[in-house]
Amino acid sequence: GFIALNCETVLDYAASKENVAKVLGGASTRASWSAKEIGDGNINFVYIVTGASANKSVIVKQGLPFVRCVGESWPLTQERVRYEAEALIQAHKFCPEHVPEVYVYDATMATIVMRYLEPPHIILRGGIIEGKVYPKLAEHVGEYLATTLYKSSALAVGGAELRRARQAFGQNEDMCELTEQVIFTEPYGKADNNHWTTPQLDDIVGEIQSDAALKRAINALKEKFMTEAQALLHGDLHTGSLMCTETTTFAIDNEFAFYGPMGFDIGAFLANLLLAYFSQNGWAKCNGEDRGAQRDWLLSAFASTWGIFEKRFLEQWNEQGVRDDCGGLSPAILYGKDVKSGASALEEHQRTFMRKIWADTLGFAGAKMIRRIIGIAHVADLDKIPDANVRAQCERAALKCGRELM
Amino acid sequence: GFIALNCETVLDYAASKENVAKVLGGASTRASWSAKEIGDGNINFVYIVTGASANKSVIVKQGLPFVRCVGESWPLTQERVRYEAEALIQAHKFCPEHVPEVYVYDATMATIVMRYLEPPHIILRGGIIEGKVYPKLAEHVGEYLATTLYKSSALAVGGAELRRARQAFGQNEDMCELTEQVIFTEPYGKADNNHWTTPQLDDIVGEIQSDAALKRAINALKEKFMTEAQALLHGDLHTGSLMCTETTTFAIDNEFAFYGPMGFDIGAFLANLLLAYFSQNGWAKCNGEDRGAQRDWLLSAFASTWGIFEKRFLEQWNEQGVRDDCGGLSPAILYGKDVKSGASALEEHQRTFMRKIWADTLGFAGAKMIRRIIGIAHVADLDKIPDANVRAQCERAALKCGRELM
Repeated sequence: GFIALNCETVLDYAASKENVAKVLGGASTRASWSAKEIGDGNINFVYIVTGASANKSVIVKQGLPFVRCVGESWPLTQERVRYEAEALIQAHKFCPEHVPEVYVYDATMATIVMRYLEPPHIILRGGIIEGKVYPKLAEHVGEYLATTLYKSSALAVGGAELRRARQAFGQNEDMCELTEQVIFTEPYGKADNNHWTTPQLDDIVGEIQSDAALKRAINALKEKFMTEAQALLHGDLHTGSLMCTETTTFAIDNEFAFYGPMGFDIGAFLANLLLAYFSQNGWAKCNGEDRGAQRDWLLSAFASTWGIFEKRFLEQWNEQGVRDDCGGLSPAILYGKDVKSGASALEEHQRTFMRKIWADTLGFAGAKMIRRIIGIAHVADLDKIPDANVRAQCERAALKCGRELM
Repeated sequence: GFIALNCETVLDYAASKENVAKVLGGASTRASWSAKEIGDGNINFVYIVTGASANKSVIVKQGLPFVRCVGESWPLTQERVRYEAEALIQAHKFCPEHVPEVYVYDATMATIVMRYLEPPHIILRGGIIEGKVYPKLAEHVGEYLATTLYKSSALAVGGAELRRARQAFGQNEDMCELTEQVIFTEPYGKADNNHWTTPQLDDIVGEIQSDAALKRAINALKEKFMTEAQALLHGDLHTGSLMCTETTTFAIDNEFAFYGPMGFDIGAFLANLLLAYFSQNGWAKCNGEDRGAQRDWLLSAFASTWGIFEKRFLEQWNEQGVRDDCGGLSPAILYGKDVKSGASALEEHQRTFMRKIWADTLGFAGAKMIRRIIGIAHVADLDKIPDANVRAQCERAALKCGRELM
């Protein structure tokens, strides 16, 4: 049955799983192991278990049947841990360089035991706020997105297998419902969860909440989110879900994973780059920091993430080639070598396909930016700018950008 | 366990189901019952079981674990019967006037026992080919589409319930895969299944199969079909799936049912009206029939089906009103009475929503028309026109129309 772990019992738990014990230096070294709880999230408990030496560590993540920061009065299905585990395992299979390995997923205990991302890995958002530049980030995330999205889509697996995989994965109802509420609805109307830098932004928030065209746009994006099951998404790919060093990048925290529109993942990441970009003036003004290099990097990372995504996505498509059967989106009888002008028709088809993903991406990016400024959950990049007037200037610029993107 | 029925054993089977026996006049009248196999399809067996009197009859439909017209060498999952039964039961709940009642769904036996649609009900396609006019058809099918599509969509049930219903329903992989092959792929390339009136149409078929823009369009529609799970569709709503009299209309044969884009069902029906319309000249020329009234009716039915669909769809939306929670596509915090300009914003949102459905509808209608002329399965409306030159003229006009719609 299920037992909530603590810093003591998690050691026995780790020792009981053969391949975990092995990572930690073998069960015989159990006496020297130690554990620390590091979960700063609102929902789960997260332990670092350190084994025979510091370089032999694992992460144990456990989901309790309620919301961590509230307690038993707010129950939450542990099914979310299954979605997270399955999505992580799948993503690692697709893109091992940028997704940590899962050693154990234990449904009964609602735990995931996975690779510990050793120092100097830190949460990307923290690094960016400190003013760091990650020269490899766009390349890594572009690769991650291209690989996970392409390989789980009908392009790679065909329609029948896409349906089977979607059915087996389930629908992650609770987490999707949360997204629909906090991203696609609340920011565009009066909701208790909303908050913003006030009174500085009251006027623009008022405009947003009475803009009929924007409401149409957010509903169209919401419906896309609800109904367009193109690929297995991360579902929450912001800069807080990425662990980085200057040379490595890993995507974690897949608990919002679901089959949805590709642009939602790409847009989430790009929105967070833009939010960080718009915060730069604030940090420069408040702390007298020179943020020029980081500003330039963030903007170029925005553009090159898309460029690398597109390039790698098409490379995979061309490498796999057209499908001999009729099950995919580029069958040989339409685009094969024997078809007159087949190759040029395929190129046009691919251009159309990528243009649609790009349009979706910009829309979702805009929605993400707006919700992070006036919805329930803000980003530290902007929120921690100490001077409210300076912060509001940054936020106003970001809101304008978000509206235009949508 | 499963046993294949025949005209004898189907009587005992009917007697063994209490509510079926009741419809037939009571189990005590069993000695006077009789059965006839009427399945003219390629896949299932269909029996009329007649009870104590002719007005006490039921239909028993059984799916065997293989394709009927081929035999055991082509196995086919009986799971399709579950999808058909569940979709019929759901559609009857949503729209009892236009969907026959299901008395029993028996998973083990892969049977559906349902209402017998008594004479003079006939398959609509047959009636149209005979030159009949159905003055109520557009109203009935518009109502059927508006009711089944609205009530199973996120508009009516919200995002979380849509996901739950979708997951419970499954994905009907085999039937969807068939559709992807025969509608969205084969007609646009060389495939053994394709056939057309030759040599008369060779030139236009050649054009279609080397038209890069058309290939882009069909792939975009195919992806929509694969990924856009908006509502529970009939999945194969052609004029052969409708049983009619002059005053009644019933939709049957839901074995292709799945969660997909609304426009696919609407477009399927409209395409069949257009195909019938384009066949009129052929029937007039070959048989010297005066088809003027039917022509006019078919064209007006095309327009008014959409008009009635749109009107009834919006009526249901407005009747249900905005949702108090955030789960739907018209939440109160965006469009409620207390929101400034909320009502006009809702109207704009609804207009945008309906425009998208209309665009999808035309695209799918075009795809359906093309596949019925050059793909594997043709429609009798055109196929039975005896003179090949006359037939080819009709088909050429229909192909042009289909291409334009796409």
